[in-house]
Amino acid sequence: VSLREGLLRARAGEADHPAAVAVFSLLAKEHGTPLYVYDAETIREQARALTAAFVPRFPRLKLRYALKANTNVHIVRLLLAEGLSPEVVSEGEIRAALLAGARGADVLFTSSSKSPSEIDFALRHDVLLNVDNLDELAQASAAATRLGTTARVSFRINPGVDPDTLHQINTGIAESKFGVHLDGGIARAAYETATRLPGLSVTGIHCHLGSQITETAGYEETARKMLAFVRELKEELGLRLSFVDLGGGLGIPFRDGESVMSPERLADALKPIWEEEVARLGYEPELWIEPGRFLVAQSGLMVARVNSVKTTPVKTFVNVDAGFNTLLRPAMYGAEHRVRVVGKSTPPMVLDVAGDVCETGDILAADRSLPRPEAGDLVAFLDAGAYGFAMASEYNARPLPAEVLVDGDTARVIRRRGTFEELHRSEPAGATGR
Amino acid sequence: VSLREGLLRARAGEADHPAAVAVFSLLAKEHGTPLYVYDAETIREQARALTAAFVPRFPRLKLRYALKANTNVHIVRLLLAEGLSPEVVSEGEIRAALLAGARGADVLFTSSSKSPSEIDFALRHDVLLNVDNLDELAQASAAATRLGTTARVSFRINPGVDPDTLHQINTGIAESKFGVHLDGGIARAAYETATRLPGLSVTGIHCHLGSQITETAGYEETARKMLAFVRELKEELGLRLSFVDLGGGLGIPFRDGESVMSPERLADALKPIWEEEVARLGYEPELWIEPGRFLVAQSGLMVARVNSVKTTPVKTFVNVDAGFNTLLRPAMYGAEHRVRVVGKSTPPMVLDVAGDVCETGDILAADRSLPRPEAGDLVAFLDAGAYGFAMASEYNARPLPAEVLVDGDTARVIRRRGTFEELHRSEPAGATGR
Repeated sequence: VSLREGLLRARAGEADHPAAVAVFSLLAKEHGTPLYVYDAETIREQARALTAAFVPRFPRLKLRYALKANTNVHIVRLLLAEGLSPEVVSEGEIRAALLAGARGADVLFTSSSKSPSEIDFALRHDVLLNVDNLDELAQASAAATRLGTTARVSFRINPGVDPDTLHQINTGIAESKFGVHLDGGIARAAYETATRLPGLSVTGIHCHLGSQITETAGYEETARKMLAFVRELKEELGLRLSFVDLGGGLGIPFRDGESVMSPERLADALKPIWEEEVARLGYEPELWIEPGRFLVAQSGLMVARVNSVKTTPVKTFVNVDAGFNTLLRPAMYGAEHRVRVVGKSTPPMVLDVAGDVCETGDILAADRSLPRPEAGDLVAFLDAGAYGFAMASEYNARPLPAEVLVDGDTARVIRRRGTFEELHRSEPAGATGR
Repeated sequence: VSLREGLLRARAGEADHPAAVAVFSLLAKEHGTPLYVYDAETIREQARALTAAFVPRFPRLKLRYALKANTNVHIVRLLLAEGLSPEVVSEGEIRAALLAGARGADVLFTSSSKSPSEIDFALRHDVLLNVDNLDELAQASAAATRLGTTARVSFRINPGVDPDTLHQINTGIAESKFGVHLDGGIARAAYETATRLPGLSVTGIHCHLGSQITETAGYEETARKMLAFVRELKEELGLRLSFVDLGGGLGIPFRDGESVMSPERLADALKPIWEEEVARLGYEPELWIEPGRFLVAQSGLMVARVNSVKTTPVKTFVNVDAGFNTLLRPAMYGAEHRVRVVGKSTPPMVLDVAGDVCETGDILAADRSLPRPEAGDLVAFLDAGAYGFAMASEYNARPLPAEVLVDGDTARVIRRRGTFEELHRSEPAGATGR
């Protein structure tokens, strides 16, 4: 029995299957809890589903992985091996991409707030700067001139499109902090300025609608708007762009039986629009797509152990040894990660899985129909591969969890568990001694 | 000019005063941004205000500091020096308290979800276990028996009182995950069980209404309920408790000119109730109070530097080099920290201060009337001493900020800035090399 089979059984709702019980017991015993477990093959499958959908339909194409979903170098390396390029949001992520083996010139750096040292670091490594605003553009020009280099730049465009997702991750609407507005000639003026400033080479255009998008309509509207604008740039400024980045945001199903937009469906929807607009444009830029969650979310489970169970007059609480310090999404966004109770097949009852953070809001899963576990049992939270460990903290003085990568029948620690000593690692030693 | 004066000027709304400009420029230059800066004397003043309010009114008293607000050992040590005892929520916080010089026997450990190893660690260090539920009680009894020791225990009681604060931090209401319910004889049955199990010594009772409470009514109602229940325990079970912990939750003013419940007002409100109920009870337990935020929030500022400023058709965004990875409260709770723009006295305009995290929800301060800064300027977020650094993460691959403690005219690094190397510190070295 491969380790992978146990993980897939749990995902499929068979967490009481002997293969699942054996695998979770083994991993928890060897690596402790709370624990992030990723299945390498699921990451590869997702990357290949993306590739299979887009490569045959778009001859000029670059697919990127948005590192912010999961910045572990081992995960990044898996995705580079599948032919994806890095999309990053900070100097730290540029460094993670380089550590994973990427070339700087293959990295796209998008952020609404780049510091001077981040701009310098990016330029020194020939990273493509996806510029957010005119203030930053002037800084990039000055930095490139000072460094005696040419900054390859694109603009992040705010297309004013609402893809109908959660407000907090809805990045393409007019009131968002991101990018230059397409409307009112603002984006056009930005490109005009970029062509006049020294040290800059204008190479492309970028937008990103948001996260966890499950319908194609927003992408279709955006593709039309972006390509029409690219034509305007050609006709009025004589600009020829080498790429059009339509962003990421491809959603995943978070519920059993749910079906969401596949990459195939998105590629199908975009293809006629792309071909029609490219014909009008008179040249074909590369199409860039840059998912994060889609590639890694489903590969990951967060495994916790039950500390205690109690029934109050209002609810039954399953108290586990993880909390919003380990998995922030339920407390921060109201995200509903499916929970599997390992090795229990008793009839389900309505339970709250409560985290160990000392806040009322630290409920990892509310009002779920689950077999009632008992102290010592393991529970797994599905779809925790994206924005799981990446958002973890040491709040309540809890060391960071470990991360394990399962590949077929091997399991490899890709981040060892944090230690209590590390919590004070940066406090001056003299002062923390007795 | 003392460093402290600069901090106090900024707090008072005079961030354009030369003393403020000098101090922030110096600290940012020496320690970089984003930076947490704490004023030691403000922490002492808050501790002394609490002491001055309670000590004269309650002859039998213990005041505690809830470490979760700020777990830096240097801050904990400051509060121990003021005579406060530690209240903790995890093994990591017990360790921080011990590192700061506390005795284990002086530590109170409250958590709704204690792991077996946390219970063991607490018992080995003679820490008082504030028990959440009967499942945990049985585990504590078994662990004490196994270790050949006696576990001093209290129960966290859910008093069913709504102190009228934000739901996420409203811990004393009936649907909360915390404690045993007072109603329906549940708490009484729990005490009865505790007296029968081996290895336990029942020492007190605890409750906690929530955080950021600004009125006395909830405390008054709770004190009456708790003391009436203590009388019931005496009369029906013959129990004599050594303490009654009414929790923390004392709020602070988050707006200029706002006035909230002072410790003096709370002590005044509690005194007649306490005296009346103690007289009925026939003996006087110690009163315990355990604030966190009240003691440290106002001492702290989070200082960030402006990366860029942009005006869109909808808003003006001030993009800074901190985000919800640095200060989570605005994005997570909608908290409104006052912002001071250092060294600017231009007429205010309406601005959004946007964080550098790649999410639409990362707005540190929305629709604030502030002088418009420019790239390179410093901004300070007030009242960031509690639940600021404690909740920080490395999300978006950004190293943790540094912490500096100002004491009069000296500034001491109490946590050095995180490094890019640390982001990968726990990833196996062989695999992260090229």
